[in-house]
Amino acid sequence: MKKKIAVTIGDPAGVGPEIVIKALTQYPEIYEISIPIVFGHKAIMEKYSALMKVDADFVQMNSLNNISEADPEKIICYETSRLDEIPEVAKISGLAGKLAFEYIKNAIIACQRKEMDAIATAPINKEAMRMGKVPYLDHTEILTKLTDSKDTMTLFVTKNMRVFFYSRHITFKEISAALNKDKLVLMAGKCIDYLKQIKVKDPKLAVAALNPHAGEHGMFGDEEINILIPAVEAAQAKGLKVDGPIPADSVFHMAKEGYFDAVLSLYHDQGHIAAKTYDFYNTISFTMGLPFLRTSVDHGTAMDMAGKNIANEISMVEAIKAAAKYAW
Amino acid sequence: MKKKIAVTIGDPAGVGPEIVIKALTQYPEIYEISIPIVFGHKAIMEKYSALMKVDADFVQMNSLNNISEADPEKIICYETSRLDEIPEVAKISGLAGKLAFEYIKNAIIACQRKEMDAIATAPINKEAMRMGKVPYLDHTEILTKLTDSKDTMTLFVTKNMRVFFYSRHITFKEISAALNKDKLVLMAGKCIDYLKQIKVKDPKLAVAALNPHAGEHGMFGDEEINILIPAVEAAQAKGLKVDGPIPADSVFHMAKEGYFDAVLSLYHDQGHIAAKTYDFYNTISFTMGLPFLRTSVDHGTAMDMAGKNIANEISMVEAIKAAAKYAW
Repeated sequence: MKKKIAVTIGDPAGVGPEIVIKALTQYPEIYEISIPIVFGHKAIMEKYSALMKVDADFVQMNSLNNISEADPEKIICYETSRLDEIPEVAKISGLAGKLAFEYIKNAIIACQRKEMDAIATAPINKEAMRMGKVPYLDHTEILTKLTDSKDTMTLFVTKNMRVFFYSRHITFKEISAALNKDKLVLMAGKCIDYLKQIKVKDPKLAVAALNPHAGEHGMFGDEEINILIPAVEAAQAKGLKVDGPIPADSVFHMAKEGYFDAVLSLYHDQGHIAAKTYDFYNTISFTMGLPFLRTSVDHGTAMDMAGKNIANEISMVEAIKAAAKYAW
Repeated sequence: MKKKIAVTIGDPAGVGPEIVIKALTQYPEIYEISIPIVFGHKAIMEKYSALMKVDADFVQMNSLNNISEADPEKIICYETSRLDEIPEVAKISGLAGKLAFEYIKNAIIACQRKEMDAIATAPINKEAMRMGKVPYLDHTEILTKLTDSKDTMTLFVTKNMRVFFYSRHITFKEISAALNKDKLVLMAGKCIDYLKQIKVKDPKLAVAALNPHAGEHGMFGDEEINILIPAVEAAQAKGLKVDGPIPADSVFHMAKEGYFDAVLSLYHDQGHIAAKTYDFYNTISFTMGLPFLRTSVDHGTAMDMAGKNIANEISMVEAIKAAAKYAW
């Protein structure tokens, strides 16, 4: 059965509405594998499609019952509030931030009620959310808190390459000190569980090294010897298929070639550089650890591009398709 | 006029001879743009081509005078010593290390005498060189010292993406402390000079950031504010076309898209991950700062693969072609 995907339009002043419009009007394959529902106001979608000179029809719905098919000629917009004012295009505002939050909240509720199977999100703007007095920092915090999830993990998917992150938004100088054997073992186990959740059979994980050439036996750093090798060995002793630490300049190439189902990268840029240099627009982000699957574009609201019909929609298309493919 | 390229076979027990044989027998385009001369013993090349079941003819030469053309049917091997014993395939030995050094030394002398225009090197083995009592650590040290060069800089080329390195073989923990404004300005200037040397017109350089999202105004680290931004501004004040610091997960993608002629990466893995995840086999390395151009494969001797005819030759092919294209 086709999965129902809640496609949130993100900040209505950013590129979100545009990339959703492009995705849902130019990619018929999305409808072959899913039932995409726009979580965003119809009036906003109409405003953008007029700006973009895209010939698209939208249907407003206030309930998600009885949706059994979707039609690219009549794109369903799910609304739960009256829209008194359409936020100005390309302008950061509290109104836009509040609406972005409303759409995500609606999508979460719909997934919890099993009316929807997964969420694919367009980008939101942190500043707009702060101005709108939304008490959460970003998508991950909203999703984690509103679903009472314990912790979540980001998984990047770029074509056939999958990348998890041991750490993300910490300063570069803190990365080494943040490495911990027990935490690595725990996270390796989670990575493998998450891979199973998205239907990877008998998953094999590689842990990236920290130092150049994985330290060359301690010549260029000792985190491999003191933390990473013991962590991999401990994970293996628990029966997990974990390999490494593998030099970071080889491990992503090896993942591309199919040697591993995913790489556990140790810091933000390590995994991000790999994914985005491999294929910037084809990089999508999964949030694992929630009761349902959430996929996302991995770029921001790009306010400077909003309303100009120039934003690249590939990542949004891939996020919707991945949600349909991997939702459980 | 076609450039004469000294192709050193590297450690004769590693994959070097094989990838050179593949390059010089299967890629006629090399002969269209260059005169490649093998710097390695004919007997070794014959042994490997027999192992590989490649039908190739080799000609031994003891002088480089009067070479005005090369013929894939009669591959020229330049020798300067008698070979009493052929090193065992796939075995690290002092003999192999000594021979590898001899070939590089011969290539350097030939370039200094203007008998050759550039060098394209196959990989050598540090341990074999140490066992062979070669008083140098690696290619770069041999090339720098034997040519009395002051300092050299590595430039990676992966298709249309070029990457320089601010630091390389230091531990991860030392990277932040190694950043210095004046050194960055100096290196940015050198990068631009080197780009001009390989015929890039009016070169534009991007400096990669260190912290995630370039630190987001100090939220995730302050090296951007304290060192990198001042360095870029100082370089710009000197009239250099330098941009940055740009978040590391965007800057390589932007270089691929043609926004910059090269990226100055701050540490080994930052640039290596980008290049090798983009295209592992198409990554070649230039050593800049020598009196002549040296290009190189960017992989090791892969002893475990030697003699099995399974090594990928693309990087060797690209190194020879790049030497022919960019030699001055």
